[in-house]
Amino acid sequence: MVINLNNFFNTISKNSKMGDFQDLDHIDGLSVSTICANLYSNKRDDVVMFYFRNGATYASVYTQSKLISENIKWNYKINKKKIRALFINTRNANAFTGKDGYKGLKILAEKLSEELTLKQKSDEEKPEKIESNEILFACTGTIGEKFPTEKIKKSIPDLIKKIKYTQNKYIWMKASMGILTTDLKPKVAMEECHIGNKPIKIYGIAKGSGMIFPNMATTLGFIFTDATISSTILKQLLKQNIKKTFNAISCDGDTSTNDMVSIFATGKVANSQLKNEKDKKLTEFNSALFNVLLNLAKRVAADGEGASKFVTIKVKNCKTEEEAKKICFSIANSPLVKTAIAGEDPNWGRIIMAIGKSNVDLNPNKLSIKFGKISIIENGKLSSSYNENEAADYMKEKKIDIIVNLNKGNKEFISYTMDLTKKYIEINSDYRT
Amino acid sequence: MVINLNNFFNTISKNSKMGDFQDLDHIDGLSVSTICANLYSNKRDDVVMFYFRNGATYASVYTQSKLISENIKWNYKINKKKIRALFINTRNANAFTGKDGYKGLKILAEKLSEELTLKQKSDEEKPEKIESNEILFACTGTIGEKFPTEKIKKSIPDLIKKIKYTQNKYIWMKASMGILTTDLKPKVAMEECHIGNKPIKIYGIAKGSGMIFPNMATTLGFIFTDATISSTILKQLLKQNIKKTFNAISCDGDTSTNDMVSIFATGKVANSQLKNEKDKKLTEFNSALFNVLLNLAKRVAADGEGASKFVTIKVKNCKTEEEAKKICFSIANSPLVKTAIAGEDPNWGRIIMAIGKSNVDLNPNKLSIKFGKISIIENGKLSSSYNENEAADYMKEKKIDIIVNLNKGNKEFISYTMDLTKKYIEINSDYRT
Repeated sequence: MVINLNNFFNTISKNSKMGDFQDLDHIDGLSVSTICANLYSNKRDDVVMFYFRNGATYASVYTQSKLISENIKWNYKINKKKIRALFINTRNANAFTGKDGYKGLKILAEKLSEELTLKQKSDEEKPEKIESNEILFACTGTIGEKFPTEKIKKSIPDLIKKIKYTQNKYIWMKASMGILTTDLKPKVAMEECHIGNKPIKIYGIAKGSGMIFPNMATTLGFIFTDATISSTILKQLLKQNIKKTFNAISCDGDTSTNDMVSIFATGKVANSQLKNEKDKKLTEFNSALFNVLLNLAKRVAADGEGASKFVTIKVKNCKTEEEAKKICFSIANSPLVKTAIAGEDPNWGRIIMAIGKSNVDLNPNKLSIKFGKISIIENGKLSSSYNENEAADYMKEKKIDIIVNLNKGNKEFISYTMDLTKKYIEINSDYRT
Repeated sequence: MVINLNNFFNTISKNSKMGDFQDLDHIDGLSVSTICANLYSNKRDDVVMFYFRNGATYASVYTQSKLISENIKWNYKINKKKIRALFINTRNANAFTGKDGYKGLKILAEKLSEELTLKQKSDEEKPEKIESNEILFACTGTIGEKFPTEKIKKSIPDLIKKIKYTQNKYIWMKASMGILTTDLKPKVAMEECHIGNKPIKIYGIAKGSGMIFPNMATTLGFIFTDATISSTILKQLLKQNIKKTFNAISCDGDTSTNDMVSIFATGKVANSQLKNEKDKKLTEFNSALFNVLLNLAKRVAADGEGASKFVTIKVKNCKTEEEAKKICFSIANSPLVKTAIAGEDPNWGRIIMAIGKSNVDLNPNKLSIKFGKISIIENGKLSSSYNENEAADYMKEKKIDIIVNLNKGNKEFISYTMDLTKKYIEINSDYRT
């Protein structure tokens, strides 16, 4: 995948709909640098570094897979209050690469430590030593291939030369494109808010678009803010906001060995001190963080491999949120539902099938189903107003809403997915060839 | 789908490999009849009846979906020791059709009762009244469409006229084709065995090929024997044999509202009396029944929608069978694994991913993986003998074996599935159009 950045900007500015691509600019205390380490056969940026020259508090959520990648193991081991850099490579997941894969990260961390310490000496009034265990790693790509330590290591000096202390939309776009694999579109999102009377920025980037099914965290997502918030509070905020955002999307029901969502705070805005994650001063920040995460998560689902339609599934009036979530994902992960949507076929029988197999107890006579505003099933019966032609017209839309009402409680869940097309098969049967 | 039966026979006899299509002949006490009730727009047999003129003991296992079809509800209500007929229609699942769907079955059952009682009067020395609650129904096809009661009812007199008391391979092929929906091939299987010194036949037919994922029973499968076995014993034998046969297959992870596997015994062979399902005289019968069920189940998986390859997944040396099964189906249901197989790509990283997401605890350093006889992973490391070209050659085979060894216990499970191809998307996005 080679995207010409200028063409891309021209295209998106011509077609820009509300919120399609927001213009991210500068976050104080952060630097972004990208480079081509020749990990792909075609030239493209495949290594991205986020460098916090004065450190950043941070928190992460990781995949729940029982076989985790070497970089996730590395990140678990780091037990620092502050971090100095986030280093991301694509093409190779560094998963099931064993001791060599882990050792590769150590070599890269040491090289980064050395080079970044030199950078500190040349740039900072009070230069500090950057330790190798102050670097967080994210990897994405093929599982089980030898980790290309040498190629990546060789690219580090140039990567560091390219560090600039100010960002603009162009740099964010390059960074968000540098972390992609089979994604067709970069994913960026931003919000501005206040903590006390101080204006705060929250910026984020993410990548999909295969092996996407939530299990704590899913896929890669990185959030940056200039606020002053402790790692402990960041952890709580991230955990509570991930549930209905990144953990509410599914592309193919497959969970990666490398899923990771992290948040970093540079502390450059001296907002007032915060007691804990429930501090009232955080209300605005919390909801802005939710919006950034949801925005990114939806972009991941919308750009799911081969997607031609974005699908929102709302299951409401359940006894528990867990029940609602089970039905949501039973629908979102059903190949038969997803192929019907791809075929623009209002085949609601497959929704019935997916609800039935979710193993949630329900009264069929109370069940209602809607496609958008079109009522299909009302209290267990085909709606008297149902007109298949009208439903077929609705299925031609690019965004499809499926609403399931169990009428047995007041809990709900919303999940986001896409349709299953021939393109998905094409992408995934040709991935490595 | 229109298959010319004569061409079909010519083709299969030319290409007949061992066990590809066995020649089923006659089962005493059974009659088979098929007809076109015009349920499809093209002319094809779409209604099939198995008639037991002197009754049959029987047992069934049904879908575990929470939304079951009207015919499954009907069958649950019947509490007879003996049954007189199994009546199957395709094209319409009679699921989520509400009271009208159920009433439709009642109308058909009454018509069948009337017509079959007349048939008894004309044919039997001691004619018996056939009650409407002595008729079992199986339906398969689209969920949620109005059940075509009248069309089917109209076809009943002709269906009964066509009853012949002897079967041959031609009749079995017609019956097995009359129950198909999107299947490309009929599915028949047979075994011969003994109970005591009496020779016994076990014949079976089945259909797939979408919405195939085990949950007690899955898809449609019907087994017939001339043995004398009580319904209670049949139930036990069916339940214990279904686990590793029909419940070991998955095509797309979707569970139908209509799944049903039944066994019928005409009692025409006067074998010695049986105490219970553990009776030693049943050993041979039990293993023959297992073979018929497994044979049919494999045919369902092999003919899974769009399948180009048949995949066997064996997960061994686990602590419990449940663990082995979890990993089996995590692999069998992974779209990424299935598309890699379709692409003939030995992308074993996706097997790692699927094992990881199964939520089974394991020691990565003890994990071994083989594709057929090719060792990929040995004790958590890429095998020293691994040669990707050799593995790529193996992936070109039509039958792929994946063997996962956890080296932590002595329990195993084997599941059967197929690859995920563009053809699957084609079939399922065009299903109703």
